[in-house]
Amino acid sequence: MTELVIHNARVMTCDPAKPGLGIIDRGAVAVAVDGTIDWVGADDDRPRDRREIDAHGALVTPGLVDCHTHAIFAGDRAHEFALRAAGTSYVDIQHAGGGIMASLGPTRAATSDELRELLQGRLAGALQSGTTTIEVKSGYDLTADGELRLLRTIGGMPGRPRVVSTLLAHLIPPDRAHDRDAFVREICEQWIPRAANESHRPTSVDVWCEHNAFRLAEARQIFDAAKRHGLAVRGHIGQLSDLGAAELLAEYGAWSADHVEYISDLGIAALARAGTVAVMLPGACVQLRLPPPPVARLRAAGVPMAVATDLNPGSSYCESLPIQMWLATTHFQMTIEEAWLGVTRVAARALGLGAAKVGTLVPGAPADLVMWRTDDPVDVAYHYGTSLVDRVLTS
Amino acid sequence: MTELVIHNARVMTCDPAKPGLGIIDRGAVAVAVDGTIDWVGADDDRPRDRREIDAHGALVTPGLVDCHTHAIFAGDRAHEFALRAAGTSYVDIQHAGGGIMASLGPTRAATSDELRELLQGRLAGALQSGTTTIEVKSGYDLTADGELRLLRTIGGMPGRPRVVSTLLAHLIPPDRAHDRDAFVREICEQWIPRAANESHRPTSVDVWCEHNAFRLAEARQIFDAAKRHGLAVRGHIGQLSDLGAAELLAEYGAWSADHVEYISDLGIAALARAGTVAVMLPGACVQLRLPPPPVARLRAAGVPMAVATDLNPGSSYCESLPIQMWLATTHFQMTIEEAWLGVTRVAARALGLGAAKVGTLVPGAPADLVMWRTDDPVDVAYHYGTSLVDRVLTS
Repeated sequence: MTELVIHNARVMTCDPAKPGLGIIDRGAVAVAVDGTIDWVGADDDRPRDRREIDAHGALVTPGLVDCHTHAIFAGDRAHEFALRAAGTSYVDIQHAGGGIMASLGPTRAATSDELRELLQGRLAGALQSGTTTIEVKSGYDLTADGELRLLRTIGGMPGRPRVVSTLLAHLIPPDRAHDRDAFVREICEQWIPRAANESHRPTSVDVWCEHNAFRLAEARQIFDAAKRHGLAVRGHIGQLSDLGAAELLAEYGAWSADHVEYISDLGIAALARAGTVAVMLPGACVQLRLPPPPVARLRAAGVPMAVATDLNPGSSYCESLPIQMWLATTHFQMTIEEAWLGVTRVAARALGLGAAKVGTLVPGAPADLVMWRTDDPVDVAYHYGTSLVDRVLTS
Repeated sequence: MTELVIHNARVMTCDPAKPGLGIIDRGAVAVAVDGTIDWVGADDDRPRDRREIDAHGALVTPGLVDCHTHAIFAGDRAHEFALRAAGTSYVDIQHAGGGIMASLGPTRAATSDELRELLQGRLAGALQSGTTTIEVKSGYDLTADGELRLLRTIGGMPGRPRVVSTLLAHLIPPDRAHDRDAFVREICEQWIPRAANESHRPTSVDVWCEHNAFRLAEARQIFDAAKRHGLAVRGHIGQLSDLGAAELLAEYGAWSADHVEYISDLGIAALARAGTVAVMLPGACVQLRLPPPPVARLRAAGVPMAVATDLNPGSSYCESLPIQMWLATTHFQMTIEEAWLGVTRVAARALGLGAAKVGTLVPGAPADLVMWRTDDPVDVAYHYGTSLVDRVLTS
């Protein structure tokens, strides 16, 4: 990468040392040869010895961070979507062989090249929508070899967006339900140790804690195994009911607690104390017609909130964070500032990338930027349904 | 236009003579020199003497019809959006000088060239999202000369999408509130007769029937004037309360009743009898946090339902019908078939364009088509947030 300066910009730094979104009204950002940002400040003070890109007053923000996706799968579940639109319940669809299980067959049957191509298409859609860092979970195979293959495919994706992989204990498949303990043991003793040995290893282990997925005692075993292998923990919790999983996640110092439609005040307090990020997934919430999560209570308790697409074939087939920002600020009543931090700095924190300054435009951060077709941060949530991305720059 | 054939397509005809969406799985559509469709059928039977476009199996549908927009305005209301996201109510924003009134100043102050350019930008966004016919209402000036200027600007837009203009009695501005009767008389005796005399005249008159807008007796006077001048009637009704406006619209054989969050069973029955289209505006409903309209009751009564963007600066800044289809099929529980007919054939009916076969692909219809990056009609609602439009063809 050559040195350059983006100037004449309205720069949203998301600098944690500054209030709010850390906006510099007439600002500039300088990128060093190593692909990091080495200077941010007022336009007039910018380094003058570099190639320049004139932003013509446009908003320049950190590249967006999508901290919760299930982007690797084959087949789709359009048929289920149509059934749900016609009034069939999610539970009835699951009983008819739909739901997550319906994605296992096509995913297992796909070659690694096919999976890579499918994932690549979705990553390209995300990049066009402004996402420069994306998390992708395994979870649509549910065998040791198959999950390893998914993680290897995710971890090996070249180029941009930057991909972070997560090992997901998604469900206990019906053919293993007769011996749940053996399945959980396999995750702890095979999936996690093997994944942790890979060159592109996942950085965290995620567990869906729910009546129809993993029980708390099982999640605890899986989290213990994750910790033993130096992996952080995260959880899908409270989407359909409150099992007390927030308290468990807090106990493990989890990076994030995702969904949280159902959560008690004690659970919220535990997340706040642990500094765990609550990941809001408004698209899935609307699509499954769930009640919105308690945003006001999370805010009051000081729980940091991220916003993600939940890109997956069942409840949210979406690569675009801006449409999630519209949903977050309307249906979820998050503020504009919360929505922006939720797809930048706070999302990075949910992926353990806070120390690397991902999701900010400050010296030392990776030079991932989006130039928008507006100068107003509100517009990205407000003017919805078509893309306001003008240009995505990545190091 | 030269003669051509789009072949090797999955053709959604929306032909009212066929069940459902009238899909021809391996179909072709032929376009005549006059810009109309002159043949639709099985791929093997297609005329062989024309230029051909190979759809490679893709879905080809009628161009989308957006039957409810307020796309002509200057300024924006991003600030209000941010306030609402931060918890301020719509009513409090109105009392602080926000709401519709906040768009009057910038719109009145804009030159006609500026208004044309702003509208053109929004129409371009709509076209890229698959919309080939769009309705645009006046209503952000509220003086006789000003409304005429808006209607002239709307009616004079060249090219595509095809634009249909509607005269909207939007609000009674505060500086006219001391003599409501005089304002209503002005609409009836000046706005409507003058608009009806224009070369690009509006095809209908729309009235916002609401406590804070026009009362039923006032709407009746305006509708009478519309009828006298050969214009159809439509109404914004039941967005905040049920005044009984559905019954009034039905009495006038209105083309459409729009919003209808609040409507009684008697109102629904009246719409059904009159064949009035109920226009669903899910984006505005979500953004204003209103309860969804009674879709199941409208369906049961046989009221045809359209889906539109409500493109406007206050409650739905959106040019994209596909995102409204996602909202309609998730938040509003409309079926896939209802959502598709709602943005094609039924939307055209809400604009009085049913007889012109707009929103269908049948012989005699205008050759407005969209080729999608999928072969499955469900995908356009299901895979949301990024555009699946491959190509828009218009005559």
